[in-house]
Amino acid sequence: MRSQDIHLIRHLPLFVEVPPDQMPELLQSALLQRFPPGTRLFGQGEVPDFLHILIEGVVELYAVSAEGRESTIELLSPVDSFILAAVLLDTEYLMAARVLEPARILMLPAQHLRGEITRRPKLALAMLASMAGQFRTMVRQIKDMKLRTGTQRLAAYLLRLHRTGGTPVTLPASKRVLAGRLGMAPENLSRAFAALREHGVAVQGGTIQLTNIPALEAYCLPDALIDDPEPR
Amino acid sequence: MRSQDIHLIRHLPLFVEVPPDQMPELLQSALLQRFPPGTRLFGQGEVPDFLHILIEGVVELYAVSAEGRESTIELLSPVDSFILAAVLLDTEYLMAARVLEPARILMLPAQHLRGEITRRPKLALAMLASMAGQFRTMVRQIKDMKLRTGTQRLAAYLLRLHRTGGTPVTLPASKRVLAGRLGMAPENLSRAFAALREHGVAVQGGTIQLTNIPALEAYCLPDALIDDPEPR
Repeated sequence: MRSQDIHLIRHLPLFVEVPPDQMPELLQSALLQRFPPGTRLFGQGEVPDFLHILIEGVVELYAVSAEGRESTIELLSPVDSFILAAVLLDTEYLMAARVLEPARILMLPAQHLRGEITRRPKLALAMLASMAGQFRTMVRQIKDMKLRTGTQRLAAYLLRLHRTGGTPVTLPASKRVLAGRLGMAPENLSRAFAALREHGVAVQGGTIQLTNIPALEAYCLPDALIDDPEPR
Repeated sequence: MRSQDIHLIRHLPLFVEVPPDQMPELLQSALLQRFPPGTRLFGQGEVPDFLHILIEGVVELYAVSAEGRESTIELLSPVDSFILAAVLLDTEYLMAARVLEPARILMLPAQHLRGEITRRPKLALAMLASMAGQFRTMVRQIKDMKLRTGTQRLAAYLLRLHRTGGTPVTLPASKRVLAGRLGMAPENLSRAFAALREHGVAVQGGTIQLTNIPALEAYCLPDALIDDPEPR
């Protein structure tokens, strides 16, 4: 592993409390790998071999129905780990993962990591904070789905992208993936974009101009207890 | 606290690894209280004073929209803790809680508990497993909402109640609460019950006969990666 990579990993929230001299043992048999878009990292129902930590790129966590229909659950951007819950409990993944944008991923062998957690209380506490944040991220998504209409969810999502990346907003994934992330059928997503035109949303391919932020906010009512990101 | 209560608490999954001689310190200033139905335990946006552990009764976790509309996120039955994530992170609740059925609740002061967790690695590991299970419970609910129609969700929910409580199925809450839990408008829940008649679902008030389990299963396709409970 290159020294700048070790520096980067050293400062990941999960590891920042681990004393530097203990890092080599923690990262023993860790792999840092590049994956092209489309790579399936693991499937639903498999038992984790690794904890994945996304260093660069975009990863989609998705679910598959009994009939084989897919829907996006979460889009991950760096730095984020996945899927800690299945690794900790040594149990089946509830979601599958695939690479959407060229990714660099640190892979920590799951069994070794579980051993390290029982030996290093500070690592366990960091994992606990991370797990709590991931729980809250899922609660935020459920609130978004239960308290807002699909069109309001799209408006709030565009405002979140605007807040982190400015204007114009660039969609991080295809409209099929975006529809799944927002819990809408793809045809309803198209209708929602059309409905937001009167609130200043102008679509040009994957780029979106927001020309009337106050109107968009009045329409979807941004809410810190739904829309704020959790610390990672 | 009565000795049978201490015995009960001692065997909660969260505490089973804590050595018995450390329990008095852990439970220092803990309260065991009874609450009647309708009691609001805390509100969305408040910062936790306690970790609540439900020993008896039913508690509803619910969310409130910016316009004041409410929706049920989760129905809790014993034994379960709430809301660990907000307590651990010492941050605002994303959900509010109220009592639906007469409840006995153990309340552990949040600040004291956070201190105990940093001092007792085994307690931290138990919390980590619990947090992971709670994360997965939320993922299961998101999958249920994204991969199934409202009527399929109701069918799968009835089958889960049937699996744990037999027939006839008794609804644990009002239809308004149930609609929120399933992410449906109340009028759509009534339509869903009507649609399930042809799959052997007979409603008599809050009691429901399932007269054709195979038909109901064929309709909603039970899925272990959505419908199985997480260990608590």
